[in-house]
Amino acid sequence: MSESALPTIDDIRQAHERIAGVVHRTPVLRCRTLDAMTGFELHIKCEQLQRVGAFKYRGASNVVLGMSDEDASRGVCTHSSGNHAQALALAARERGVPAWIVMPTSAPSVKRAAVEGYGATVVECEPTLEARETTAAQVVADTGALFVHPYDDARIIAGQGTAALELLEDAGELDAIITPVGGGGLLAGTCIAASAVHSGIRLIGAEPDGADDAARSLQAGSLIPQTGPNTICDGLLTSLGQLNWAVLRSHLETIVTVSDAQVIDAMRLLWSRAKTVVEPSGATPLAAAISPGCPLERGARIGLILSGGNVDLDRLPW
Amino acid sequence: MSESALPTIDDIRQAHERIAGVVHRTPVLRCRTLDAMTGFELHIKCEQLQRVGAFKYRGASNVVLGMSDEDASRGVCTHSSGNHAQALALAARERGVPAWIVMPTSAPSVKRAAVEGYGATVVECEPTLEARETTAAQVVADTGALFVHPYDDARIIAGQGTAALELLEDAGELDAIITPVGGGGLLAGTCIAASAVHSGIRLIGAEPDGADDAARSLQAGSLIPQTGPNTICDGLLTSLGQLNWAVLRSHLETIVTVSDAQVIDAMRLLWSRAKTVVEPSGATPLAAAISPGCPLERGARIGLILSGGNVDLDRLPW
Repeated sequence: MSESALPTIDDIRQAHERIAGVVHRTPVLRCRTLDAMTGFELHIKCEQLQRVGAFKYRGASNVVLGMSDEDASRGVCTHSSGNHAQALALAARERGVPAWIVMPTSAPSVKRAAVEGYGATVVECEPTLEARETTAAQVVADTGALFVHPYDDARIIAGQGTAALELLEDAGELDAIITPVGGGGLLAGTCIAASAVHSGIRLIGAEPDGADDAARSLQAGSLIPQTGPNTICDGLLTSLGQLNWAVLRSHLETIVTVSDAQVIDAMRLLWSRAKTVVEPSGATPLAAAISPGCPLERGARIGLILSGGNVDLDRLPW
Repeated sequence: MSESALPTIDDIRQAHERIAGVVHRTPVLRCRTLDAMTGFELHIKCEQLQRVGAFKYRGASNVVLGMSDEDASRGVCTHSSGNHAQALALAARERGVPAWIVMPTSAPSVKRAAVEGYGATVVECEPTLEARETTAAQVVADTGALFVHPYDDARIIAGQGTAALELLEDAGELDAIITPVGGGGLLAGTCIAASAVHSGIRLIGAEPDGADDAARSLQAGSLIPQTGPNTICDGLLTSLGQLNWAVLRSHLETIVTVSDAQVIDAMRLLWSRAKTVVEPSGATPLAAAISPGCPLERGARIGLILSGGNVDLDRLPW
């Protein structure tokens, strides 16, 4: 599989075998109280319990474990200050190869420390997208490391699709799956996996209304980049990837947009009722399910993929 | 089994069969990060994921489901504003029998609403222990309901012991189990269950140093009641029960006392690393495990029973 062709269900199944030894098979949570409150039968895939606290470890592991020994020996590189940075750092450490993570000087020291804790080398740059890309390109030129894009890469998409594969194995047939959409890797992987396993399953994205490029793209029929995002969902600020867009436009029923207030309500429900810690981005699928804009009928069996649980307990949004 | 004889392992096994249809078999969580940080192999029994958010539902269900039809038809009664109140209310509703819960006028309205949400009748009283006992006695006299003590009752202890039974089934042989100790129902049930399944297993209580009657009782060799407790562990304020004391004195290796600061640290570790919401009382076993006062050696396989997860997200202790 190249990084630029769309992945298939076979790629996702191969990814699942490849990463089985290093990723957690995260549980699918049921919660009577949330079912009673929402009127749905919710099957909650807990990627906040994944290693590094986010689904990102699936895709990163798939890339790193899929490299030839020679390529892998030169290491990997990305620019990110989010969950992908930690995921790639840990995936590289698990294979015993070097990782360079380009981070803006403005990144919180706790995020830098987390990446360094996984043994990666942090390379600082100015806090602009241009500086990040230039710096990463320089690292790649200097080291021969493989640049690993956080979402617009078929191997990443295939890795992220393994979460939906497990969800459907554990929950059985579902009427719909809702996942967050930022760059679109998780949602695209989910679309390919779920539609192959259960044709006719309804596929829905959950997106903050302050970063709704995917919803606007779907409505316009063409990819519209995100500019000036404004939402507490710090994992969903980015623009939809090209590959992901190609998948979403052909598989997705709709995107439900949610306000930050709806996200905070959903976060509190998950913390207080399901006793599980999710980050704002991770709460968007529940927020979408209970939003008036959700097209699903009462009683529907819905899979929610909670994307991550990395929050600063000293800066909670309530 | 009467309510005043000590329960046996057979009573606990019977309780387990009796309540199997209504309680959740809660998961036993593993967390590499916590293992690496503590040097132990931790097997974390998640009673915060039990119905009503606490282990209390086990004992309450065992009492309610063990009653004759005639006794059950007259209902149950207790005085509590904590997790036992919700647990008994739900257990009664599941059997379709009435429940009267005596609560002080000072109880938070959210706790009253939770109990009423489970269909129980709340009977108000002045906020003194005497008023609570008198009011409950009056309810029992008026209705013929069975009074269900929150912890000093063999049927309650047998029900609480089912959590340790499940933990040992799922985790296999353990070197030690640590549970919180307040009234002592969970710890006494754990002692009876665990020592019967694995003779020689080390049994340890975790108690806040601001409500350390169990630790002082163990040291003195006689039951010392708790007066003037002062701790954020609101589930552990009460005095050790007579029956529980009889079990603990013969089974327990030690009680590790922990400060509120240690409890808060452990709570934050569980929230941020294991992504699971526990209340202060529920975090005491981890606080005890990582306390300098813990007698267990590095590498020990330790079962921690997290007792509950009912916290007010607007009043977090950090």
